[in-house]
Amino acid sequence: MTEEGARLSELAKRRGFFFRTAAAYGGVAGFYTYGPQGATLKDNVEAAWRDRFVTREGHMEVSSPDVMPEAVFEASGHLDGFDDMLVDCPECGASHRADHLVEDATDVADAESMSPQAVGELIAEHDIACPACGVALAGEPVEEFNLMFETTIGPGSGSAGYLRPETAQGIFVEFPQLAEYARNQLPFGVAQIGDAYRNEISPRKGLVRVRAFTQAELEHFVDPEEDEPPIERVADVTLPLYSAQAQQHGGEVRELTVGEAIEEGVVANDWIAYYLGVATPWYERIGVDMDRFRYRQHLPGELAHYAADCWDAETEVDGDWIEATGFATRADYDLAKHAEHSGEDYSVFKQYDEPIAVERPTVDPDMSVLGPEFGGAAGEVADALRSLAERDPDAFDGQEVTVEVDDTAHTVPVEATGFGIEEVTESGEHVRPHVIEPSFGVGRLVYTVLAHCYETDLVDGDERTYLALPPEIAPTTVGVFPLMDKDGLGERARDVERELRAAGLAVAYDDSGAIGRRYRRQDEVGTPFCVTVDYDTLDDHTVTVRDRDSTDQKRVAIEGLPGTLRSLRDGDLAFADL
Amino acid sequence: MTEEGARLSELAKRRGFFFRTAAAYGGVAGFYTYGPQGATLKDNVEAAWRDRFVTREGHMEVSSPDVMPEAVFEASGHLDGFDDMLVDCPECGASHRADHLVEDATDVADAESMSPQAVGELIAEHDIACPACGVALAGEPVEEFNLMFETTIGPGSGSAGYLRPETAQGIFVEFPQLAEYARNQLPFGVAQIGDAYRNEISPRKGLVRVRAFTQAELEHFVDPEEDEPPIERVADVTLPLYSAQAQQHGGEVRELTVGEAIEEGVVANDWIAYYLGVATPWYERIGVDMDRFRYRQHLPGELAHYAADCWDAETEVDGDWIEATGFATRADYDLAKHAEHSGEDYSVFKQYDEPIAVERPTVDPDMSVLGPEFGGAAGEVADALRSLAERDPDAFDGQEVTVEVDDTAHTVPVEATGFGIEEVTESGEHVRPHVIEPSFGVGRLVYTVLAHCYETDLVDGDERTYLALPPEIAPTTVGVFPLMDKDGLGERARDVERELRAAGLAVAYDDSGAIGRRYRRQDEVGTPFCVTVDYDTLDDHTVTVRDRDSTDQKRVAIEGLPGTLRSLRDGDLAFADL
Repeated sequence: MTEEGARLSELAKRRGFFFRTAAAYGGVAGFYTYGPQGATLKDNVEAAWRDRFVTREGHMEVSSPDVMPEAVFEASGHLDGFDDMLVDCPECGASHRADHLVEDATDVADAESMSPQAVGELIAEHDIACPACGVALAGEPVEEFNLMFETTIGPGSGSAGYLRPETAQGIFVEFPQLAEYARNQLPFGVAQIGDAYRNEISPRKGLVRVRAFTQAELEHFVDPEEDEPPIERVADVTLPLYSAQAQQHGGEVRELTVGEAIEEGVVANDWIAYYLGVATPWYERIGVDMDRFRYRQHLPGELAHYAADCWDAETEVDGDWIEATGFATRADYDLAKHAEHSGEDYSVFKQYDEPIAVERPTVDPDMSVLGPEFGGAAGEVADALRSLAERDPDAFDGQEVTVEVDDTAHTVPVEATGFGIEEVTESGEHVRPHVIEPSFGVGRLVYTVLAHCYETDLVDGDERTYLALPPEIAPTTVGVFPLMDKDGLGERARDVERELRAAGLAVAYDDSGAIGRRYRRQDEVGTPFCVTVDYDTLDDHTVTVRDRDSTDQKRVAIEGLPGTLRSLRDGDLAFADL
Repeated sequence: MTEEGARLSELAKRRGFFFRTAAAYGGVAGFYTYGPQGATLKDNVEAAWRDRFVTREGHMEVSSPDVMPEAVFEASGHLDGFDDMLVDCPECGASHRADHLVEDATDVADAESMSPQAVGELIAEHDIACPACGVALAGEPVEEFNLMFETTIGPGSGSAGYLRPETAQGIFVEFPQLAEYARNQLPFGVAQIGDAYRNEISPRKGLVRVRAFTQAELEHFVDPEEDEPPIERVADVTLPLYSAQAQQHGGEVRELTVGEAIEEGVVANDWIAYYLGVATPWYERIGVDMDRFRYRQHLPGELAHYAADCWDAETEVDGDWIEATGFATRADYDLAKHAEHSGEDYSVFKQYDEPIAVERPTVDPDMSVLGPEFGGAAGEVADALRSLAERDPDAFDGQEVTVEVDDTAHTVPVEATGFGIEEVTESGEHVRPHVIEPSFGVGRLVYTVLAHCYETDLVDGDERTYLALPPEIAPTTVGVFPLMDKDGLGERARDVERELRAAGLAVAYDDSGAIGRRYRRQDEVGTPFCVTVDYDTLDDHTVTVRDRDSTDQKRVAIEGLPGTLRSLRDGDLAFADL
């Protein structure tokens, strides 16, 4: 851990942003609790996300349970494919990510994509030892370990349930209802903010690789043939793009507008480009330092098998680039899987402007031929012929047609199939939407914002540490202090505190120690404004309002103070204009 | 289910408030997904709770993970005591709550408090049969079933983790840190909104008895000797109180102010009385019908073993009284348990105003006596003497003193113990706070509000159904309609939609069908205001704003419309004054 990481962990624990869960019992790796400052900071980031990606975009929001039944993850592929490679030390029993050991000890860069057997061979070949106790791991089995937390629903043997590895499946599985609420009109977006879980083999790096984390995911369902995003709204937003090509050929991050990125084909999918344009000012709004930010395209080998393209928003913290958001095209992969596994309809019916006449192949097999020929299999042969006619009507062009039933080929004379072409009128068609998914890691954003807003300067010759959090995001909006707790100043300050709280402002009251120390305490947790009640207050009903970043102070009337502070918080008023 | 319950379920599913999770796979009992209307309604209830019970009270908020390690629940008592009684049918395999079967079939009212054996005997005695298949259950074992969902953290045998049965333990276990953030000053409150889990044997009743649910809990840590709540702020609030005494002696609900309830001793704990006073107007604020609301005191047999008193806020829905909030005194039970199990300090150090002199017994045993006398046990005897002197200095009044070490009594002449009284100066003392806990079930409140806000009336001779949700809570604040989608009305309405969304308002756009039908759609999901763009709009830049409850309409200028609608939503402006 570098200096920045150590400094962050220290501040986070000391001032209550986050700390290891259940430290009284030794803690448990990969689980963190957000303390009084951190929980509110996280709430505020979530509220800003909801404002931008749900309310302003006009999308819907849902909330599904963290525990889902096995069938959901059988369909999604997580039950089979959501694995990491595990090797256990025969001596000390420590478990390790086998692919990470190989990557650390060799030139291999993507051991994750290799087979467990190949990774095991590399461990033996390079004499890789247990990082915990130094014993050789050669010959130890490398196994796939499923990263979902499993539990049992109901008494007795019950039924298997899993803590969801992504909030997205809670949306996909409910698509039939959701389409109904959207009145079957594409495009529509469905968002969810909630927890997801990965039973990491070896969690590390504070909030970055944890076993329980909060996601803010948006699944935007679009008609791949027709729908276009409103690019004009974001065309001029500048994106720092680090394309796959640049990564592969020693190129650099390029600054392109959304319009240019589409024009030059750097971002191939318009919907992805649109969301990069929406997201960029939002990162800045919550306090990300855009000089330590980039969009990195996935390399071909990194892409999930269902994804045509994916860009990660990455933030630089502690010398590493952290994936804070993934912007992916998931095509119709998930909806198709749930349709296949559940037998339900995961499409929308798209009405044509006018009904159209289409030709449709029909089959009406002559059972007096098929019966004697195929016996008990005749019914299945007839079904196979119907299915073939839909799939491939040209197969009926010759004298005979062959279908397979239970691995046996059956040949039928075309004249016995009753094949024909019928003209029918169709009022519309079933469309399986494609999915554009911006998926945000809330904890990683909180961690980034803490790192990027950490500032030091000199005030009256002394070094000062402060968090330059945007007022909208800061856990406390205003500190209220009596200059001293005597001569009625305390009571007056308590009145101000109560009035500000009644206006819905987050207030910290502090009457302990010198005023300078009280300012420092609020500076360190990012409180943007402090109000001091002094002897003048008793005479003229004004207070001092002090700005965190400039440390400037202004005299303001108590009357109207709640409204003034709300305007400062909401960005409707600048401190300089006070 | 009565008419109200059936009507609610139908509305909830059809309009997307909530529905069974993963219905495509047959669903899984006790798990619900909040749909597009419900998730936002739930968010809004949580935001109103945070505003009232965190921000305005000046409490802290934390967010701990849903999965916690076993040690936490060993200490809290959930591992041993969080059970229901289970009986399995030998024929069909269905699992049942044994105590519920007995209560349904006999006069026994509190089978839950009986032993499994006694419940088993009642099943045999009353020939109780399986409700699913009718086979007799006599002789089947009745067993305790732990209601926590268990999982495994980490690979291999890993370590046991549990989905928390209440959010509270995520606060209690972190008390040492939390006290530090509160600078060791009592009283202070710590809140958490999050999910909790009960692996119910037979979940039922929609959102009322589910396996995953959201709690909003506040743990208020107070010095039991000194701290008093600010009763004056709520003294005049009227509480509908259904005391234990009234329940036991055929009494009724009594309407008493907070002040009267304390004066008459109906509510014995002032902190409980304070929170009943804070909560009452809040229930009304979120849309609870206070004519279908009461506070019911727990009967002596109902109380948790650690609770001195408990009052439930109950709401009447579908003919049943639902527990929507518990207001309990948990004393120092949880903190004492965590101190005992973890060995950490779960107290705060209370500084005296001035240091005080106290007498403290000391022991300085003469080892030249104890050594020869007790041999290897001499050291332990000396420790036992020290401990006894602290506990019971009077034991050293006689000639001899006796201590036990490993079940053996050892007698020592007092003069060999070096017993004496020393005067020391103490600057303060360790205090273990007591806990006052208002614990809200968010889903039950959402369910209540849907039921209580469901209204019907006649509009133009037709029956209309609408949800009279308070504007602050309604999922959508404003519907925007073009009178028709032609002559530029659609474009103008889209402009209005965009402007309102940019102001952070939750907007639904609808251009489909007759205006009357569009009003009905919004009425049914509780949208308080609708804006219609018509031909006059193109001339004079005004729109029609329509009020849901009165169906009154007013003409309002587009300029300033976002601010007007925000004021209507926030209660700063009444529609009648528009």
